[in-house]
Amino acid sequence: MNEDALANLKALGIDMIHEAGSGHPGIVLSAAPILYTVYAKHMHINPKMPDWINRDRFVLSAGHGSALLYACLYMADFITLKDLKEFRKLGSRTPGHPEYKLTPGVEMSTGPLGQGLASAVGMAIGLKHLKEKFKEADLIDNYVYVLCGDGDLMEGLSYEASSLAGTLKLDNLIILYDSNDMSLDGPTNMTFDEDIRERFDAMGFYTTLVKNSSISEIDKALKRAKKSDLPALVEIKTILGKDSLLEGTNKAHGNPLTAEDIKQLKTKLGVPNEPFYINSLAIKAFRDEIATRTDAKFKVWDQKYQAYISKKGNLKQMEDFKHGHIDFQIKNNPFNELKDEATRESMNKVLNFISDQSDLIFGGSADLASSTKAYLDGKGDFSKDNYNGSNIRFGVREHAMGAILNGMAVIGYLPFGSTFLAFSDYLKPAMRMSALMDLPVTYIFTHDSICVGEDGPTHEPIEQIAALRAMPNMTVYRPADFKETLGSFLTAFALKKPCTIILTRQKVKALENTNPKEIIKGGYIVKKENSFPNAIFIATGSEVNMALALAEELQKDDYDIRVVSMPSVELFLQNSKEYQNDILIPGVKTFFIEASTGQELRRFVSNDKYLITLNSFGTSAKTQDVLSYMDFSYEQIKQKIKKIL
Amino acid sequence: MNEDALANLKALGIDMIHEAGSGHPGIVLSAAPILYTVYAKHMHINPKMPDWINRDRFVLSAGHGSALLYACLYMADFITLKDLKEFRKLGSRTPGHPEYKLTPGVEMSTGPLGQGLASAVGMAIGLKHLKEKFKEADLIDNYVYVLCGDGDLMEGLSYEASSLAGTLKLDNLIILYDSNDMSLDGPTNMTFDEDIRERFDAMGFYTTLVKNSSISEIDKALKRAKKSDLPALVEIKTILGKDSLLEGTNKAHGNPLTAEDIKQLKTKLGVPNEPFYINSLAIKAFRDEIATRTDAKFKVWDQKYQAYISKKGNLKQMEDFKHGHIDFQIKNNPFNELKDEATRESMNKVLNFISDQSDLIFGGSADLASSTKAYLDGKGDFSKDNYNGSNIRFGVREHAMGAILNGMAVIGYLPFGSTFLAFSDYLKPAMRMSALMDLPVTYIFTHDSICVGEDGPTHEPIEQIAALRAMPNMTVYRPADFKETLGSFLTAFALKKPCTIILTRQKVKALENTNPKEIIKGGYIVKKENSFPNAIFIATGSEVNMALALAEELQKDDYDIRVVSMPSVELFLQNSKEYQNDILIPGVKTFFIEASTGQELRRFVSNDKYLITLNSFGTSAKTQDVLSYMDFSYEQIKQKIKKIL
Repeated sequence: MNEDALANLKALGIDMIHEAGSGHPGIVLSAAPILYTVYAKHMHINPKMPDWINRDRFVLSAGHGSALLYACLYMADFITLKDLKEFRKLGSRTPGHPEYKLTPGVEMSTGPLGQGLASAVGMAIGLKHLKEKFKEADLIDNYVYVLCGDGDLMEGLSYEASSLAGTLKLDNLIILYDSNDMSLDGPTNMTFDEDIRERFDAMGFYTTLVKNSSISEIDKALKRAKKSDLPALVEIKTILGKDSLLEGTNKAHGNPLTAEDIKQLKTKLGVPNEPFYINSLAIKAFRDEIATRTDAKFKVWDQKYQAYISKKGNLKQMEDFKHGHIDFQIKNNPFNELKDEATRESMNKVLNFISDQSDLIFGGSADLASSTKAYLDGKGDFSKDNYNGSNIRFGVREHAMGAILNGMAVIGYLPFGSTFLAFSDYLKPAMRMSALMDLPVTYIFTHDSICVGEDGPTHEPIEQIAALRAMPNMTVYRPADFKETLGSFLTAFALKKPCTIILTRQKVKALENTNPKEIIKGGYIVKKENSFPNAIFIATGSEVNMALALAEELQKDDYDIRVVSMPSVELFLQNSKEYQNDILIPGVKTFFIEASTGQELRRFVSNDKYLITLNSFGTSAKTQDVLSYMDFSYEQIKQKIKKIL
Repeated sequence: MNEDALANLKALGIDMIHEAGSGHPGIVLSAAPILYTVYAKHMHINPKMPDWINRDRFVLSAGHGSALLYACLYMADFITLKDLKEFRKLGSRTPGHPEYKLTPGVEMSTGPLGQGLASAVGMAIGLKHLKEKFKEADLIDNYVYVLCGDGDLMEGLSYEASSLAGTLKLDNLIILYDSNDMSLDGPTNMTFDEDIRERFDAMGFYTTLVKNSSISEIDKALKRAKKSDLPALVEIKTILGKDSLLEGTNKAHGNPLTAEDIKQLKTKLGVPNEPFYINSLAIKAFRDEIATRTDAKFKVWDQKYQAYISKKGNLKQMEDFKHGHIDFQIKNNPFNELKDEATRESMNKVLNFISDQSDLIFGGSADLASSTKAYLDGKGDFSKDNYNGSNIRFGVREHAMGAILNGMAVIGYLPFGSTFLAFSDYLKPAMRMSALMDLPVTYIFTHDSICVGEDGPTHEPIEQIAALRAMPNMTVYRPADFKETLGSFLTAFALKKPCTIILTRQKVKALENTNPKEIIKGGYIVKKENSFPNAIFIATGSEVNMALALAEELQKDDYDIRVVSMPSVELFLQNSKEYQNDILIPGVKTFFIEASTGQELRRFVSNDKYLITLNSFGTSAKTQDVLSYMDFSYEQIKQKIKKIL
């Protein structure tokens, strides 16, 4: 039965690609025995309870193998044959690459190489933490399986994440390496001639080799991997496009097989040459095998679970976790004494305040916690000796940090990560995955402008804010002071959407009229004109105080100026046109002051000259010297504005 | 003398940081013996000939150790004591992190971790290629030394580049690993508990350990490394902030030492406690040691060089290389039969045409040459068996590709790299370094829009063009057809600036009025109105043809429309205001049509509704279905525009 089901799995994947007219047959034929074995022999999953928290997770890091995954999910009863027939079609549940939330059984969006593997490390971290949370009741003992190919392993991202997984001894992580010696452009050893298992040994993994991709050998290797107390890399030698006419060549990678090839392939597989042929008996056996194993495990688990939730308070805790619920208790502002301070310092207080009210807040920094101040006091470091810790020391691995946060988020956490804004570029591909999956990940970027000073242009963000604002479904906050920082975090954790919070290194003034409650509106008035404004100054972050000071000074020259703080452009644009026009009165000369390239702010002003922004890289000098060099000092801006007014 | 000079080196670095009031003393004290030994005992360099092509290269990947590098460069007579005193001050030659072109002896801008190491791999590749170019004369036999710390090695970027270096057997590369067990946030093993040498062994490196950082042991290790026919990793155990009061703690990393600490440190070092103390004898001995060794080598080299350039044509070849000169011979357009084709196909022809005229064109793809078509026919693959090849198989290592291109560029090449536009995010930090260093690197990104179709949102670029246009000193080209592709490449290779060329996967129409010669202007008219335009349509890339078709169709309804192709926004904005107003007549309703977020295009239109762009992620479906889904089909755009006109 096993071999029949496996043959059916392969045939379905190939048929899907043929029907769609595009897709990747090579991996379907190389990796089918791997997916088959994991699903048939190891995974504890139940299509009727796709959200069971102790289910095993499977991530297809080589996301281009989606046809194989979908075929497998059909066979495991998560999706329908109709879904398979709609592969890569508009509105289907079976898009070209797996998409989280769209398809039952798909645990993570994948496609860009390395992301899946690194996010699987994040899932393993999340589950280790969760295991501690429910330790008494012993509710978590599952595995994260991730299938990757050579491409995933070449990506630096996968190295970063694996290195951390080794350090953290995540023995709930099993990497299945579809080792087919072939990548898109040709033989893998042209570019990737390393001893992979030795490398993973060096990183603290248990490694093992499966020389032929038979179900029984893969099964044995998985059993070995599970016995180890280390994360595991199971290398399985396979052949790209096995049994097709293009077997073993890179031509098998990315184009549908010809009708002729499909015919001979199905003959080899012993499958009738009819599209979407179903071997009902084999598929039933496959489903039964999964169900029997899972049901047995679930029964034991459910007893523990029922006992757990029967105790006072536990059901609420479980429900809160499942729904990512945080109950903010800030009826009274707990922060009485407002003072001038860097917003990174404000963030430290706010983040600690919020995390004291919810253990869903879980995150860390890419070796910059000392500088970004994103650290949860008294919550301990997450380490191989303490999976209960809520601070992750990501190391200098910004990209892995982003992808890991995505993995933690799908487990149910509200994760955060931090580094300098200039280095946000390093993790942008992972941030894009957060945005695509609509995950509640909070990116905290400090050292947010040329005010960084002496560290010079490599460390001075210029274009990063623009790049982040350009990303769909990413809400960017740049608060002006403590109160706006508080408001930004409260809004972010209330909205539970992908977001970026951008903070200063340098001290900023505590402003009188800023208001945490206004952050949800994105922009609001922090200084009202006396009668009717001659001009409106919009500013964000550290520039809000500058705008206020300018307005005050210009008032002496009889200018009547309104100042608008706009901590979030995205949120401001979500307001009604009426509100927007109330705040930014059409026809009034409007300036936007921000230490960034700011072309995306052009919509708020009538002409380029009203954009008081930057358009070149910074320099290394004392902050005031940098500001003057960039034509962005208080005096220079004042002169620029006066000339226009 | 050696120890005296080393003590002086340390003291100078510490004094610089004290004088500047900021900097990184930890690495100065840990890595000084490494830099000292490399410069005193190994490097062939001559401050009077900083451009000697066969000089050894040194890259400080741990760029925060700039004080140490500058102190060393002063001692080696590249810069002055005055430079050291101006450390981190406005306009100095000694900025916070090393900057290429600014400081004699600095071969590469560094700071963002991993970039230096990966670019050093690019330098080693460039030099291997150059060695082949001048093989007969045997002009190249130098080394690239790169100093890195734990932070560099944690970055996935460094892994990617090292893995490729191993595959390519770059025995001219020596990585000096300042192994001090401490990173910014604390002990390295918290986050980075791998066996580094074993990992590098697995990647095909020669590895060796120096247990104590004595000059003689480091010297011996370097000799061993040079004997190997593999790239080398020399791990040198050091102590962060050695001999300071903060020795061995992460507190030594990033803050100036106290006056008290400096005093006791200098006592330990046997250096008088006076700022910028100079031990003239020791420094002279250091300079003499370098000069004696270098002079001897140079003498032998110069004989070969003189013999080489005395032969006909060779001097020109050498000068062309030194000045990055390409002599385009396109008096007659060599491409007669213009046809509808994807601009990636056009690029293949153009790139091959240009590279036939210059062997400075050297580059490759991140395992997507088969798809991007960026491949130089008949020029061979650069491999361990053929350093003469001009096509680099970077593997699925986009980020390393970018950083390696930077390294190739500083050696003197005009390198190119390619991948899909959606994955440009993966290499953005390296692109920023190209822009910062103003290097002639050409990034080629194909599959440039939602027209990618079935591969879905992870593969469909939306916000990438905006992010690239936001980057200072990065010229972005998006040609409309073959002729514009030709023009974009000719312009790019003539300007020799960092640039990005964005190309379609799908076939586009060969347009009548496009003109390669107009590309330098960035934008120009491709369809003139009959009398006075009712509207102007600006478009780029594949949308130009759509704009033309719309204009034709609307003409039937008596609209008189001008169409402007704008292959490069940056170049267009460099024109005189007169030219800009000639093309985009102020007051005429102007639309910008581009399949991207396009907020940076807002300056060209009077109101958001004139931006015919995208604002959400794509979907997986057939191209036409994706366009409709995104409200970006021909018919939908026509209706949108008609409503406004």
